Amino acid sequence: MRSDVTHFECEIADGIATVRLSRPDRKNPLTFDSYAELRDWFRDLHYVDDVHAVVFASNGGNFSSGGDVHDIIGPLTKMNMKELLRFTRMTGDLVKAILGCGKPVIAAIDGICVGAGAIIAMASDLRIGTPEAKTAFLFTRVGLAGCDMGACAMLPRIIGQGRAAELLYTGRSMSAEEGEKWGFFNRLVAADTLETSARELAVQIAAGPNFAHMMTKTMLAQEWSMSLDQAIEAEAQAQAICMQTADFERAYRAFVAKDRPVFEGD
Amino acid sequence: MRSDVTHFECEIADGIATVRLSRPDRKNPLTFDSYAELRDWFRDLHYVDDVHAVVFASNGGNFSSGGDVHDIIGPLTKMNMKELLRFTRMTGDLVKAILGCGKPVIAAIDGICVGAGAIIAMASDLRIGTPEAKTAFLFTRVGLAGCDMGACAMLPRIIGQGRAAELLYTGRSMSAEEGEKWGFFNRLVAADTLETSARELAVQIAAGPNFAHMMTKTMLAQEWSMSLDQAIEAEAQAQAICMQTADFERAYRAFVAKDRPVFEGD
Amino acid sequence: MRSDVTHFECEIADGIATVRLSRPDRKNPLTFDSYAELRDWFRDLHYVDDVHAVVFASNGGNFSSGGDVHDIIGPLTKMNMKELLRFTRMTGDLVKAILGCGKPVIAAIDGICVGAGAIIAMASDLRIGTPEAKTAFLFTRVGLAGCDMGACAMLPRIIGQGRAAELLYTGRSMSAEEGEKWGFFNRLVAADTLETSARELAVQIAAGPNFAHMMTKTMLAQEWSMSLDQAIEAEAQAQAICMQTADFERAYRAFVAKDRPVFEGD
Repeated sequence: MRSDVTHFECEIADGIATVRLSRPDRKNPLTFDSYAELRDWFRDLHYVDDVHAVVFASNGGNFSSGGDVHDIIGPLTKMNMKELLRFTRMTGDLVKAILGCGKPVIAAIDGICVGAGAIIAMASDLRIGTPEAKTAFLFTRVGLAGCDMGACAMLPRIIGQGRAAELLYTGRSMSAEEGEKWGFFNRLVAADTLETSARELAVQIAAGPNFAHMMTKTMLAQEWSMSLDQAIEAEAQAQAICMQTADFERAYRAFVAKDRPVFEGD
Repeated sequence: MRSDVTHFECEIADGIATVRLSRPDRKNPLTFDSYAELRDWFRDLHYVDDVHAVVFASNGGNFSSGGDVHDIIGPLTKMNMKELLRFTRMTGDLVKAILGCGKPVIAAIDGICVGAGAIIAMASDLRIGTPEAKTAFLFTRVGLAGCDMGACAMLPRIIGQGRAAELLYTGRSMSAEEGEKWGFFNRLVAADTLETSARELAVQIAAGPNFAHMMTKTMLAQEWSMSLDQAIEAEAQAQAICMQTADFERAYRAFVAKDRPVFEGD
Repeated sequence: MRSDVTHFECEIADGIATVRLSRPDRKNPLTFDSYAELRDWFRDLHYVDDVHAVVFASNGGNFSSGGDVHDIIGPLTKMNMKELLRFTRMTGDLVKAILGCGKPVIAAIDGICVGAGAIIAMASDLRIGTPEAKTAFLFTRVGLAGCDMGACAMLPRIIGQGRAAELLYTGRSMSAEEGEKWGFFNRLVAADTLETSARELAVQIAAGPNFAHMMTKTMLAQEWSMSLDQAIEAEAQAQAICMQTADFERAYRAFVAKDRPVFEGD
């Protein structure tokens, strides 16, 4: 997987990719270029076999300030509908690319996490925060609706319909403590251990059966709007596929040998 | 928007409508007439531009005792299927009308909030309660099922599937504290500040971009059963529409001028 | 309803069936035989009228250790796809049978509750736990995906999408305290009162209108992926059906007589 990106930062080591938005002096805003490059990077990730998990990290004490007012909002006010839809679809495509990349994504969230930044956090599978994390769905503050990049679908399933409605209508900050209590954050850790914690979790998950993890990720998204009966049949098929992997046999053999399994992702 | 209603109470001031059920001596039961008039009132609300948010308030220390036993349940026991279905559809139409009215609805819930009253609370976007609020889905106590006016769809998405099942099977009261912890209530306030708090929240939201709020409300309902991909595309369209509003440009201009935006709802 | 089962334990008294998995010395693993017999038993339950609620109990201090490694996982590693799909569909059919049995199922969960055991807990309507309950979706530990028997559909709706993802990717234990806080457990009780508590709740629910309970259970599953409008119409029909039961009239007559209703389930 390539790490030579231009509009965000990316390091890859030991099968874990760490990405983060650039320009910590401005709290890591998104730009047209970083949206597009992130979308392409996550789309490519779907096809590679040498990255097993992603940490979407903070940078300089903040996660992201969202779409930049000067670089993005200004130009948007001058666009026609065709151009606007091209933009909103591109931002939505980033969410689709994260959901479809086939690898668990762990967001490590410190400080400001707002607007499109908060959406990237939601599109991630897991979220570790710090006590300083401030998450806000600011769209209403710039005259827009809460329905941005899938927010009205994802946020209610993470923290509940009533809490989601409040955050989306008011644009107010969700504190780190609320986020942990409501299930937005999987846990909170001190800022100076944030990235290490996220990385350790990524390493731990990546040591598991990665083909099966890909299937877990696929089905969490796939079953979103299935009926219960459809979901149960879909899982019967998905799990039967996993039962033909070598990793399943490796686990069984290790168990019989009273050993720890070493998974290889096939 | 008209406030001259007969079977419930309604005041409109400064773009905020405050409605409440009548007959506090009987804890504000619903009747055939108040169901129908509320349904029509919320349907009309969809088309008006001079009300931006609704407070569904309590009355005399209680929210609502639900469908009146004498006025409603008695007659229902004598109806044939055609008549029964006309009634259950009318009650469902009230929920649909609240969901479809295009304006944020804030329920201010004190004391008894049961049966159809609890459903109205759920159909609202936000819920502020008092420590004395007692919410119960009493249907089982009168020999009926928990599936009333959309309860089996809405309650699990607000407080989780397991907790919803318990309340619907047993009909037991959810305490205010449980309701706050589980996400049914956005927050609890003392009874003597309940209506002020709800009104302040309504005023705050109504000062935002009301066309965009309407879109947030629309999409929260619309995406209920969409796939993630469908929801993301639907939001790309909905947000692109909002990006052509004057409110979006007003927000941008205010930001550049280091000013607070004044939204006008178009 | 028959209680003469071979591969699990079953007692029926006063309209309450208590079932539990066998072999407490091995923490009650599931086997091919117990899967199949449980599936058939719950399918039959749909048609009977003399059992009104089920307690799915623990045995010897544990709920279930899930699919047995020797009896199930060993053979699975040798099966072809046709045989694997027959197995995963059988396990899914057990979930469908529990969801479709028409009677409230209360899981009483002590100690180990993992793998397929945790799925049975989720397929139940209500869950009472003990402080010693350890629930884990272990599939990832044996090289499989978290999508087993409907887990990726059910767990997010019970505890939220973010928490579910963590449990499914890592396979870590959810503590009893977490389970209660997150809505997996309806409540926790001391181990020595667990089965009594579950039974009391079952008796209390079974004393209610059992035809209506069946409808509540049906609709909780049925509305899983309906739109809000569809759900509201579906409930208008379902509740109108319940309004033609004698139990509805019994409740009304008891109310008028200032008496407690005695429901008979028709």
